[in-house]
Amino acid sequence: MSADLFIAGDWGTSRLRLSLIRGDQVLARAEGPGIGQTPDPATVLAAATADWPETTPVILSGMVGSQIGWVEAPYLDCPARTEDLARAMVRFRSGHRDIAIAPGLACRNLSDAPDVMRGEETQILGAMALDPRLRTGRHLLALPGTHSKWARLEDGAVIDFQTSVSGELFAALRDHTVLGRGLEGLDPTDAEGFRLGLDRALDGPHPSLPHLLFEVRSRRLRDDLSPAAALAALSGMVIGADVAGAAAGVPDLPVTLVGAPGLTAGYAQALERLGRSVQTLDGDAAALTGLRRLRQALDQLGDTGR
Amino acid sequence: MSADLFIAGDWGTSRLRLSLIRGDQVLARAEGPGIGQTPDPATVLAAATADWPETTPVILSGMVGSQIGWVEAPYLDCPARTEDLARAMVRFRSGHRDIAIAPGLACRNLSDAPDVMRGEETQILGAMALDPRLRTGRHLLALPGTHSKWARLEDGAVIDFQTSVSGELFAALRDHTVLGRGLEGLDPTDAEGFRLGLDRALDGPHPSLPHLLFEVRSRRLRDDLSPAAALAALSGMVIGADVAGAAAGVPDLPVTLVGAPGLTAGYAQALERLGRSVQTLDGDAAALTGLRRLRQALDQLGDTGR
Repeated sequence: MSADLFIAGDWGTSRLRLSLIRGDQVLARAEGPGIGQTPDPATVLAAATADWPETTPVILSGMVGSQIGWVEAPYLDCPARTEDLARAMVRFRSGHRDIAIAPGLACRNLSDAPDVMRGEETQILGAMALDPRLRTGRHLLALPGTHSKWARLEDGAVIDFQTSVSGELFAALRDHTVLGRGLEGLDPTDAEGFRLGLDRALDGPHPSLPHLLFEVRSRRLRDDLSPAAALAALSGMVIGADVAGAAAGVPDLPVTLVGAPGLTAGYAQALERLGRSVQTLDGDAAALTGLRRLRQALDQLGDTGR
Repeated sequence: MSADLFIAGDWGTSRLRLSLIRGDQVLARAEGPGIGQTPDPATVLAAATADWPETTPVILSGMVGSQIGWVEAPYLDCPARTEDLARAMVRFRSGHRDIAIAPGLACRNLSDAPDVMRGEETQILGAMALDPRLRTGRHLLALPGTHSKWARLEDGAVIDFQTSVSGELFAALRDHTVLGRGLEGLDPTDAEGFRLGLDRALDGPHPSLPHLLFEVRSRRLRDDLSPAAALAALSGMVIGADVAGAAAGVPDLPVTLVGAPGLTAGYAQALERLGRSVQTLDGDAAALTGLRRLRQALDQLGDTGR
């Protein structure tokens, strides 16, 4: 078996995504159900990788390591570096395969509350591998999503981070309040509506979010805001409030966005609106690169060759 | 028929509540389905009032006057006084009864957005009747609910108001995000948890609401916050953000809370936490008194005696 052949897996609540990797190449891909959807992770993994060499080791990150996952990989406290994460991986054997599961990270965040992430730590390692400049000096990384993460880096270590429930908040408002009524099936892509939402959230002195949100409804009733623009305005308000909160907490650092292009574009617009310097990295590439870095770090720890 | 006998009705989306009134006395009560639940309001009203004198006039407020109601009573622009609202009522005959439906109010709010209310205007009139001090000088009225309203009064006129989607936001977060997971069936009444939520929302410099909310989850994972305390903390954060936004917009006025005691108590705690002077009036009493004031104002307009 080739020493540099391994299987990289992102196993979240709703989906398993596996890649068979040699060096920089992805030789094959496979998918499976989320860790929240299966009572028997070992069988799911065996089935999804049945066509691949049976002794190839597996590196996993995501909710697979949570209390409701396969084997718990306890949260590692910040500050944390790649080597710390590799060392804290939970390792065991399943069938013929060596399995290693990445731990999540825990910290006290900027507002002095406990905070946790699981899966994003691997994307952060990947981002630092994709852009070596992130390994020196101070940086702010933003990983937008259901639960967006804003992480501070210093000389290659994750210092702390803050979670924002922006994606889940947007979905709950759209699907379960009067704000989304009549907007079913639309995409929040209307440029003018999105800009209106950002303006309302970012132009100071701005009202608090609960006061702001009703405009999505009242402007439809009174100002002829179109349904498409209303949904985009709702998205802009939530993203604007997320970005305003993060920008106020960490005023000076350049920002690197890591995520799906459709989502990072809106965040980039909000950050640029506040005069922040922004670059963007692809989230899937960062996740895969992060798993590759963890594999390398395990190798460097010197105890993975079976 | 006694000239001062009338039927007062609060007809919202989900419920019709009727009272047969003479002077200060409620002679009888009746209920029926919400205006959003019936295609035939005339028949619903006739059935609900079948035991009462058949020519007694009816004064209605709430969503019954909306575009999706019975007969539309268009929004009246602020500033508005009791007489303006009485004059703008939509009046028609249904069977043997004279019906009058109160208009809603519209304004440009403090954040220069369009805003609307429908039903709360009647509670505001009632509040001014219950406490005559509210008819002179400047006051801030807060009507907490699904869509909370913060109204500025000046010498008996509603100058403007602002809607906060606090109640609906809390319910959507509780029922449709990870924040409410494991909290099903609990009441948000835990005093310590509520205080924690208020502290987090009101102690400056505080993070934006999307950043703050995740603490409800992370403190359960990391700080042993109990489920009951977590739900109360979520309520405290939403109410705190609502009150902080309103207090920042209108810094100097004494506040009168109008609503259900269980809800106004939390708002009073938040306002007192910010050093604001607060009094509380019962929301049902205010609604009934407001309908009585509209009836009197219609009489004073001199054209209601049939």
